[in-house]
Amino acid sequence: MTAPIDFYFDFSSPYAYIAIQQIEALAAKHGRSVNWQPILIGVIFKNLGSMPLVEYPLKGAYSRHDFARSARFVGIPFNMPTAFPINTVNAARAALWIKTHLPQHLSEFVRAVSRAYFVDNQPINDIAVIHGIAAALGLDADAVCEGLSEPVIKDGLRANTEAAQARGVFGAPFIFVDNEPFWGNDRLAQIDRWLGHGSF
Amino acid sequence: MTAPIDFYFDFSSPYAYIAIQQIEALAAKHGRSVNWQPILIGVIFKNLGSMPLVEYPLKGAYSRHDFARSARFVGIPFNMPTAFPINTVNAARAALWIKTHLPQHLSEFVRAVSRAYFVDNQPINDIAVIHGIAAALGLDADAVCEGLSEPVIKDGLRANTEAAQARGVFGAPFIFVDNEPFWGNDRLAQIDRWLGHGSF
Repeated sequence: MTAPIDFYFDFSSPYAYIAIQQIEALAAKHGRSVNWQPILIGVIFKNLGSMPLVEYPLKGAYSRHDFARSARFVGIPFNMPTAFPINTVNAARAALWIKTHLPQHLSEFVRAVSRAYFVDNQPINDIAVIHGIAAALGLDADAVCEGLSEPVIKDGLRANTEAAQARGVFGAPFIFVDNEPFWGNDRLAQIDRWLGHGSF
Repeated sequence: MTAPIDFYFDFSSPYAYIAIQQIEALAAKHGRSVNWQPILIGVIFKNLGSMPLVEYPLKGAYSRHDFARSARFVGIPFNMPTAFPINTVNAARAALWIKTHLPQHLSEFVRAVSRAYFVDNQPINDIAVIHGIAAALGLDADAVCEGLSEPVIKDGLRANTEAAQARGVFGAPFIFVDNEPFWGNDRLAQIDRWLGHGSF
């Protein structure tokens, strides 16, 4: 089977950032592409009665330590943003608009936004920052920033988040290989084997 | 440094079971031994306001699937026990008694109890089952089963659990390499590198 890998993510997730930098190469190794699925994980957390990792006692402090260590482990630059976690609704809507109108530029946009937050400490939910990232990629930045507030995009992000939860997504990154669910950056090695063998 | 690796576990944790079957070989590869630290993770969950993984919506169903897949991934037999999770206070006390009085047999006892639960579906908190496991290992099973109710053992397990939480333990398995904390079976690859390099 050669269906794309479904990659559900929220730009505010450090583990999603780490996986975003690796998932395309992993997919390509097995002749697959990546279907980027921007969602708002905070909405799902609220629906499920959970909360951001860093807000849990003990686990929060550990997680902050583990984010940086997990990035170093795979050789990816990482700087904990000053403001964390943040609302990423505008960035997610921009990604969805680009997915709809400029799909060939979606991967580079997703990578650039996540790096802007987790490497360069940029407030990626600010329209001006989104504009700058789109412009730096040579995209029509005005069109991106106008498009992200279109009702069809707002509704689309809401629907995508609801569909993700209906499919079993409770955290980010959440990856489906065909219908096999994998939660977390730390399942990439399992995904690699699954893609190679069809199952294991 | 050649200090033992501190391995905190609860016999009711599937991820701890998977790690238990691998941690000694991993430690030995780097000239280390394992300091088994039985705890009652349910007590820590209660203190922190969390609960067993399988009780969370969506995450619970995913986790049951992931337990078995993660065991297959590393070639370890796994059968989900009929009763899960269970209270493991007697098994943990037995491990602590053996740690105190028959330390040279602790590793094989820990491995045998965890396999009895996650391979053979045995009710490992039953004194008769603990007796049988100890006897099969050639230990004085009567002494183990009498010893596990000694006040010093009961107090010791309580103190070990409190000390674990004070050290930052919020889940199982939880492993310290010197003072570096690692949570979960899925950090064994990071532990391997950490042991080899002193850090990374």
